[in-house]
Amino acid sequence: MRLTPKNELEYRYRKLQVEMAAAGMDAVLMVQNADLFYFTGTVQTGVLYLPVSGKPIYLVRRDFMRARMESALEHVVPLPSLDRLPSLIAEHGALASQRLGLELDVLPVNLYHRYLSLFPNAKPVDATPLIRRVRMCKTHYEIHILQDAAGQADKAYRRAREVIREGMSEVDLAAELEHVMRVEGHQGYVRMRAFNGEISGVQVLSGADAAAPACTNTALGGMGLTPAFGHGASYNRIRRDEPVVVDFASCFDGYLVDQTRIFAIGSVSDRMRRGYEDMLRIEELMMEMAVEGASWSGIYRACLERASAMGYADAFMGTPGGQISFIGHGLGIEIDEYPFIARGFDEETLEVGMAFAFEPKLVFPGEGAVGIENSFYLSEQGLKRLTFSEQELVLL
Amino acid sequence: MRLTPKNELEYRYRKLQVEMAAAGMDAVLMVQNADLFYFTGTVQTGVLYLPVSGKPIYLVRRDFMRARMESALEHVVPLPSLDRLPSLIAEHGALASQRLGLELDVLPVNLYHRYLSLFPNAKPVDATPLIRRVRMCKTHYEIHILQDAAGQADKAYRRAREVIREGMSEVDLAAELEHVMRVEGHQGYVRMRAFNGEISGVQVLSGADAAAPACTNTALGGMGLTPAFGHGASYNRIRRDEPVVVDFASCFDGYLVDQTRIFAIGSVSDRMRRGYEDMLRIEELMMEMAVEGASWSGIYRACLERASAMGYADAFMGTPGGQISFIGHGLGIEIDEYPFIARGFDEETLEVGMAFAFEPKLVFPGEGAVGIENSFYLSEQGLKRLTFSEQELVLL
Repeated sequence: MRLTPKNELEYRYRKLQVEMAAAGMDAVLMVQNADLFYFTGTVQTGVLYLPVSGKPIYLVRRDFMRARMESALEHVVPLPSLDRLPSLIAEHGALASQRLGLELDVLPVNLYHRYLSLFPNAKPVDATPLIRRVRMCKTHYEIHILQDAAGQADKAYRRAREVIREGMSEVDLAAELEHVMRVEGHQGYVRMRAFNGEISGVQVLSGADAAAPACTNTALGGMGLTPAFGHGASYNRIRRDEPVVVDFASCFDGYLVDQTRIFAIGSVSDRMRRGYEDMLRIEELMMEMAVEGASWSGIYRACLERASAMGYADAFMGTPGGQISFIGHGLGIEIDEYPFIARGFDEETLEVGMAFAFEPKLVFPGEGAVGIENSFYLSEQGLKRLTFSEQELVLL
Repeated sequence: MRLTPKNELEYRYRKLQVEMAAAGMDAVLMVQNADLFYFTGTVQTGVLYLPVSGKPIYLVRRDFMRARMESALEHVVPLPSLDRLPSLIAEHGALASQRLGLELDVLPVNLYHRYLSLFPNAKPVDATPLIRRVRMCKTHYEIHILQDAAGQADKAYRRAREVIREGMSEVDLAAELEHVMRVEGHQGYVRMRAFNGEISGVQVLSGADAAAPACTNTALGGMGLTPAFGHGASYNRIRRDEPVVVDFASCFDGYLVDQTRIFAIGSVSDRMRRGYEDMLRIEELMMEMAVEGASWSGIYRACLERASAMGYADAFMGTPGGQISFIGHGLGIEIDEYPFIARGFDEETLEVGMAFAFEPKLVFPGEGAVGIENSFYLSEQGLKRLTFSEQELVLL
């Protein structure tokens, strides 16, 4: 069992304390699972209280012994009831805070009011942008876990090559690949920070259905099995001579990587084949541009312009009216971390340690979709690819 | 593809309007996926605006055409940007509302402030208790879907009988059963309303590890594969002569049922065998008591007392200090719906249409866990079991 080392946790909360000091925040109170895992090493139900200086206190409702075993933090204390929170924090010497940071993007309103009632003098502020900035740049420890997740992705990719056959349903293929990943250590759940962010398993989208728009903020949605969950693999059967998009998030020891490959039984049309190769060129363009200091939106714009110049103004990242305004998204414990290779981030630049998926894709209504997705990180020696499966269009 | 019928949607929103009128609520604005599915028949990103009288308006960001196809509501309109929400609602003749109901248990703070800024005169109130009460009693249409989900559960149960073998890891077994359910139509995601409610696939908990407490609000947590997701199946290998708990939520067309069975290769100790049989007796006690008008907490207390009288005061629903205060939970689109067969619901009584899982379980530290879980609904003819797999302890 991989336990987050003590120095790793210390490095992380100190980085957040620097951000807090700059923002004038006296303390941060964290409760969301992904943030708890990052800053405590476990996800036991409770509250992490981090003052702007000094050590964090992890107050645990359930299960305290698990938290004690799994977290390398010094102050892990039982929290018998939420009402005891202020007094237990005070006992550990933390001062009453005026400006109290909370995870306002994910904290539900009722819980928010409950916490505020415990700290009547606190002025609540949003700590999420700070937390996300700290989590944005991965340590070497984290990169190694992402590499393990990429190994799992390759196993699923190889299985796909073996099992895809004509007449197989999208969900049959998804189930096969989810099975591989699960046996290889996938936790069976993909964390997404966005509200209503529900992701299920492997996205298998074949033929014209791959071009079906969905509620997801992605270039390809898919029909899903039911309007109750209207995205991802459907009962649609894979036919000859059409592209099959296989897009999935591997997950190992809590960390996610994202990968997409295109398969076909027989062949695909010239337009699809050329489109696929052109998306590889867009990926190359990103790889040239993704150096320290490069603007997130600068890369996005350059790729969008290149795709338009290639003749894909109407097909790039969706169909007209449904095109999304990003080509890449940060990765880690959640699938929608910073950075975003997207419109609207002109001030933000790439930093060493950032990990992200990059997924240039083309959608042709009535025909299908093609594209590539790999996960990358920016090292001291430049951009490196995490996912390492072969990049060729797989014709079977 | 099963589409929620128009009369079904009308029945549902009218029931909510009755609750709203009684609570003095002028309108409800809904955005969460589970609620959207229930009241619109789809989960396209957008806002459902329901005035206390008149018809609901479903304003859709993405994807409008999917919403139009999948929802039988009369007023489905595109929402080009959130700022247009008030004017579009006004165009459809709905009056500006004073007391505006919102899903305050799930709506994140930042989104809440965004919506309030659009309706500066609105007084926000919590609509969730009303919504949950409406969703609590299932229609015949919903019961039929739950029955389909129970069929899927039985297929997974049968596969478990076939594939469990000595030396197999918990996660290997979980992966096999998840594969069965996925191919049989499981959406690959289990919705839970509670904050941080993350559920992954099939819970396989073997031997002493089944008694490991976890962050989950359940009698059995399990170790999980990683502290990043510290519950459910682990890499632990199944051995002879120990109970293997197999607990999972099947899901079909958006609806969940929950089932637990115990397997063993060889045999189990007399204490475990007797414990299992005693939990079947607790189930029988509940089935006798679960009539229309019975108190949720009354059933809970009677079962707790019977279990204590049987000598299980320390083992029932957890280990001392970690025992949970419920034996059953409502089911439907989410796994934590009303009713709760639990402490603290003395005023609440069973009504026709309620569907719930009932799961009396015993935990013996160092040894393991046994118990039974089935899903039920209260029909006009009394309590009926939804899950129908054989109830015997499975000795292989």
